[in-house]
Amino acid sequence: MKIIDYRVTPIAFADPPLRSAFGLHAPYALRTIIELVSDDGVSGISETHGGAAVVADLEAVRDLVVGRDPFQLAQLEHSILSSGTSLGRGAGKALWEGKLQSPPRTFGAIEVACLDMIGKALGRPVCDLLGGRVRDHVHFSAYLFYKHAGAGGSLGFDTDPLATGWALARQQAALDGEALVRQARTMVDAFGFGSFKLKGGVLPPPVEVQTMKLLAAAFGTEMPLRIDPNAAWSIPTSLHCARELEGLLEYYEDPTGGQAGMAEVAQETRLPLATNMCIVSFGDLPEGIRLGSARIILGDHHFWGGLRASIELARICRIWGLGLSMHSNSHLGISLAAMTHLAAAVPNLAYACDTHYPWQAEEVIVGGKLHFEDGMLPVSNEPGLGVTLDHAELARMHAQYLACGLTYRDDELEMQKVEPGWKYVQPRW
Amino acid sequence: MKIIDYRVTPIAFADPPLRSAFGLHAPYALRTIIELVSDDGVSGISETHGGAAVVADLEAVRDLVVGRDPFQLAQLEHSILSSGTSLGRGAGKALWEGKLQSPPRTFGAIEVACLDMIGKALGRPVCDLLGGRVRDHVHFSAYLFYKHAGAGGSLGFDTDPLATGWALARQQAALDGEALVRQARTMVDAFGFGSFKLKGGVLPPPVEVQTMKLLAAAFGTEMPLRIDPNAAWSIPTSLHCARELEGLLEYYEDPTGGQAGMAEVAQETRLPLATNMCIVSFGDLPEGIRLGSARIILGDHHFWGGLRASIELARICRIWGLGLSMHSNSHLGISLAAMTHLAAAVPNLAYACDTHYPWQAEEVIVGGKLHFEDGMLPVSNEPGLGVTLDHAELARMHAQYLACGLTYRDDELEMQKVEPGWKYVQPRW
Repeated sequence: MKIIDYRVTPIAFADPPLRSAFGLHAPYALRTIIELVSDDGVSGISETHGGAAVVADLEAVRDLVVGRDPFQLAQLEHSILSSGTSLGRGAGKALWEGKLQSPPRTFGAIEVACLDMIGKALGRPVCDLLGGRVRDHVHFSAYLFYKHAGAGGSLGFDTDPLATGWALARQQAALDGEALVRQARTMVDAFGFGSFKLKGGVLPPPVEVQTMKLLAAAFGTEMPLRIDPNAAWSIPTSLHCARELEGLLEYYEDPTGGQAGMAEVAQETRLPLATNMCIVSFGDLPEGIRLGSARIILGDHHFWGGLRASIELARICRIWGLGLSMHSNSHLGISLAAMTHLAAAVPNLAYACDTHYPWQAEEVIVGGKLHFEDGMLPVSNEPGLGVTLDHAELARMHAQYLACGLTYRDDELEMQKVEPGWKYVQPRW
Repeated sequence: MKIIDYRVTPIAFADPPLRSAFGLHAPYALRTIIELVSDDGVSGISETHGGAAVVADLEAVRDLVVGRDPFQLAQLEHSILSSGTSLGRGAGKALWEGKLQSPPRTFGAIEVACLDMIGKALGRPVCDLLGGRVRDHVHFSAYLFYKHAGAGGSLGFDTDPLATGWALARQQAALDGEALVRQARTMVDAFGFGSFKLKGGVLPPPVEVQTMKLLAAAFGTEMPLRIDPNAAWSIPTSLHCARELEGLLEYYEDPTGGQAGMAEVAQETRLPLATNMCIVSFGDLPEGIRLGSARIILGDHHFWGGLRASIELARICRIWGLGLSMHSNSHLGISLAAMTHLAAAVPNLAYACDTHYPWQAEEVIVGGKLHFEDGMLPVSNEPGLGVTLDHAELARMHAQYLACGLTYRDDELEMQKVEPGWKYVQPRW
């Protein structure tokens, strides 16, 4: 079995004007689709971060991919990871990428496609290639955002004035606690999610604390709550808000920046700290564990180096008594399928996974959007990832990528279009 | 694919009277062979530690194995490991087992058989199920022992007066440095090994230090040397010998006992410390890493929880900058095949693996003993482990198990037969 074709296609899809500490989501989110074809005609697909730097990284390893047996992943991983930053452009230009390194991202994207190919060739779902499933359904969390009005896009996916329910709510502005509670209610009604994560670091901390309190009041204590200020808060602000939020949160995600800062906050609060910013690679673990920077790691196979690496991260979390949850960026169904297979195979994934998926209306897989039921997705029994690439949609979204003119995610620039002179600062408060 | 048959067969095979800190090897070594059969007639085999406690542990999980899809390993691992010591008899009765826990051993033995079955069903070697190979040949080390005269056994595998070369040397007594150098020379001539490990902790430390110096003088500095006193030395003795051995050793394996003791030695010597005694499970890693008890871990899939767990151990070693080598007990070809597939898949296995294999004349696989060339074994391309169980030999060695009357390894008792009143003590010197 040999890989004879390797296609890397950048795409763009409409993304609502969601706010975060980094600024504002652009009208289009960028993503990259990887397609492999084997000499016996089996395909393998995956989805990863978007933009020109990601594509350049993936193209730089073409010679390591074409001609390879998809089972030979250790060689490929070793080649890509040991090359350090010499392949591709390192961490890219986007603020949100922070400490992310390109080699594990590059390898991970290819690994998922190889596992999809292997699974299809063997007639086995990807979770079975990761040690098999420990659950048949995977819980996801409702990802709440402060946002401006609009659904994103400009080439046919603009605001739909006839929308109702979630389709309407995802277009509506939400810039205070009451609006967030309405957004949460509509999201739960539409998808049945059983926990909430608020993307914080956007409005002054008292407003965000008040939003959490309103959510708790509206949904009761059986509904786990998380807030993620994306390191927008200073240590004193983080500690002040921690006192306000104690007893209210399932976990407190990246209130402040850096391992030392997180560790300082962790020592002064009973809230369990979680991170997908100060521990984002295996190389961050020794210091993070030594300092006690976080009690919960939000893994993400897109930047931790793929699905097998994520299984290994889960083992490390069990060994050191760390909790494990799952991070997301704006994504489509191929990533969602991979996340679901991974979550199915990890015994110690004790939290509902993050997902931006409800915010996106477009889809690149055959059959359109996957459906959450009671906040869960079933784990597919189909070979591979269990999803099929819709080539017409791929072509359309690639054209959209070329037309939209974006080559990397720049939330600061988008924010400046709304608030001239706006600057990303960390911490802001 | 479903496992419909699960056979656990204890066996015994002739073992020479090898010495260690624990005493003397009995005339027979004990081992256990696991056989699985799937509903579509595919078999899977593995080999693990021997004796009644190991068999009891494996029998205790029968209901978790029969009826299971062999791909569903995470469920099985979770069931067995989370059961703690309630399955089976914990660490067994043997002194050498020290801190070893039965759940990972039990799971690991079954996991290897499942991977063999999966590999056979898919037509893929086991290393490909672990991420593929990073090498086509695996280096093994010459394992030198102080020993008494004889080749072990009493049912047809006793000393052969017509033997020559290694067949003769493995029968000969070796109880001083000069005899060890002769043993080493014959072993290298027969197998081409390119490094030496001396099982120490047997004779007074000055004799063992002198043996290492004689080996270095005889084979030159290009031949890596290791000594493993099995924690028979006190901290002062370990430090004294370290000063004698500095510059001479590739690594210094378990001179003294316990994580704190090893850490104390590590801080006072430039020799890299290695261990398969104070860090023998994932649960030992946090303390071992915190204290700096060893710079090199000798992994062993038989007690670390199987092949996939060992791949994860390798990742942990990369992350924390630990070296990785491989430990062995007296074993046959099924274990050797599994060790070779594992070694093939681990990029950071930087040392030749330990193996007792040349010391055993019997074999349970079709075709007889595997052959080292230039100290290496080729990595098989055959499906699964690439070895086939010889059922006639299995039956014979099972009869030998029943006949020999041993139910666990008791090197202290064997030593007492030679030196009445001999007691295992740690440290001895």
